[in-house]
Amino acid sequence: MKKITALVLASAALGFAGSAAAQFAKPDDAIKYRKNALFVMQQHYARVGAMASGRVPFDAKVAAENAAVAEYMSKLPWAGFGEGTDKGDTKAKPEIWKEQAKFKEGADKMMAEMAKLTAATKTGNLDNVKAAVTAVSGSCKACHDAYRAQ
Amino acid sequence: MKKITALVLASAALGFAGSAAAQFAKPDDAIKYRKNALFVMQQHYARVGAMASGRVPFDAKVAAENAAVAEYMSKLPWAGFGEGTDKGDTKAKPEIWKEQAKFKEGADKMMAEMAKLTAATKTGNLDNVKAAVTAVSGSCKACHDAYRAQ
Repeated sequence: MKKITALVLASAALGFAGSAAAQFAKPDDAIKYRKNALFVMQQHYARVGAMASGRVPFDAKVAAENAAVAEYMSKLPWAGFGEGTDKGDTKAKPEIWKEQAKFKEGADKMMAEMAKLTAATKTGNLDNVKAAVTAVSGSCKACHDAYRAQ
Repeated sequence: MKKITALVLASAALGFAGSAAAQFAKPDDAIKYRKNALFVMQQHYARVGAMASGRVPFDAKVAAENAAVAEYMSKLPWAGFGEGTDKGDTKAKPEIWKEQAKFKEGADKMMAEMAKLTAATKTGNLDNVKAAVTAVSGSCKACHDAYRAQ
């Protein structure tokens, strides 16, 4: 119970969307949750990325569908980064919990770029999608470089 | 490429929501995708379940937030059950691909009960939530009994 309370308080401190719901039974569940949410997001994002890079023909409707799911998913993982979830089956670096404001900034940036990507797909213009994909990928990379062990 | 086409056609045959987007690079990705989507769904659903069973005090707002995420997530896993995803790190039984209409019926039932759960949480009435949770759990169990190896 103490652990759960700590998690909830930590998430509340981070102030992420959905943080009020960050009640994991154990830290391992929180770690699995954030990894799983990010994987689902990545699968949908990759389909838009494949169109942006020309590996797959551009289909505005499919791009918009996948961007919308990726945008939704982008809001979920952060609740899984509560205090006490730095140990376990994770590549998350301890810096996340030492630089919470900076980490939150990176998360906010990624969510904002994902929202812009959805908007870009709705224009039906591939150049808009390409620019938005570059921005999203940049936000992914920035956080991975700083906060994920290789 | 042949494999991807087969997956897309299989998903289209199943007719699930989001199936047009079922373009996984490899079957293992599809298996991981459906497991991860179901885990994220389960984590949110469990929070509403804990309130229904009295283990956690009822908070209508938190219940509604979590039910909404669980409902959204309930639509995703099915695209991951395309042809060729019966082998690998999965407990999915071969019956899924032999009885696709029946499997889809079970999936539809679960999605429908999840939508009813969201509606129930919005009434703010715990008895409504309890009834809806019983129905959702029943739909989970029916599919697990028939289609998931122990």
